Amino acid sequence: MTTPQLTEIDHVAIAVNDLDAAIDYYAETFGATVTHRELVVSDGVEEALLKVADSYIQLLTPTRDDSPVAKYLANKGEGIHHVGYRVDDCAAALQSVKDHGGRTIDEAPRPGSRGTTVAFVHPKSAFGTLIELVQE
Amino acid sequence: MTTPQLTEIDHVAIAVNDLDAAIDYYAETFGATVTHRELVVSDGVEEALLKVADSYIQLLTPTRDDSPVAKYLANKGEGIHHVGYRVDDCAAALQSVKDHGGRTIDEAPRPGSRGTTVAFVHPKSAFGTLIELVQE
Repeated sequence: MTTPQLTEIDHVAIAVNDLDAAIDYYAETFGATVTHRELVVSDGVEEALLKVADSYIQLLTPTRDDSPVAKYLANKGEGIHHVGYRVDDCAAALQSVKDHGGRTIDEAPRPGSRGTTVAFVHPKSAFGTLIELVQE
Repeated sequence: MTTPQLTEIDHVAIAVNDLDAAIDYYAETFGATVTHRELVVSDGVEEALLKVADSYIQLLTPTRDDSPVAKYLANKGEGIHHVGYRVDDCAAALQSVKDHGGRTIDEAPRPGSRGTTVAFVHPKSAFGTLIELVQE
């Protein structure tokens, strides 16, 4: 048996063309408001986090044309881009993915937004789902 | 200001071709195990729920060719299908969607899996995201 690694749905990430319009939609329709906003230069995105209990809706928009999120929007349009699971130990969770034959996008954990440590699992080995492992 | 309606990420729904294989993946790689499994005849799906804190990973597979999830898999392949947000009052949250000009798939709340009351919001008016409102 593998030790349980996922302690929370950290966030659901939604790729959008117009970040402010999406923020307004969630605020007006559902009363969900932004608790954190950050330009993540390394990933070429700007993100807005809307807190829902102990999780977040992460609205993402690209800040440059070669950002992976820009390519996603060009190919697939707006929608759910990935899911982030919170883990106690990002390196251990990433190692478990490798140990079980999974492909990873990040070879090792790296800095994420809001001071987290993150690593992405490749959707090809995860039933089409881009999974982010997030250690706070 | 709209009253906050979303109390939890109820689930992230992932459409897969082989439910048992996907269950095995999450168990072996992440130690996430099934706490509920249900055939939802009205939606033409079988679902497995893997508990993560107070949320679920919902693995979905179609049980008939005319199921919306079968069409999704045929068109887009495996991946994240929708996100479910928990609400205290599904009818009130659905009304808020309508009041703010949003399109809905369900005109009124209806029974969901595990005894919930649910309604779907159309992705066309929600930045490409299929949103389910879930009242426990």
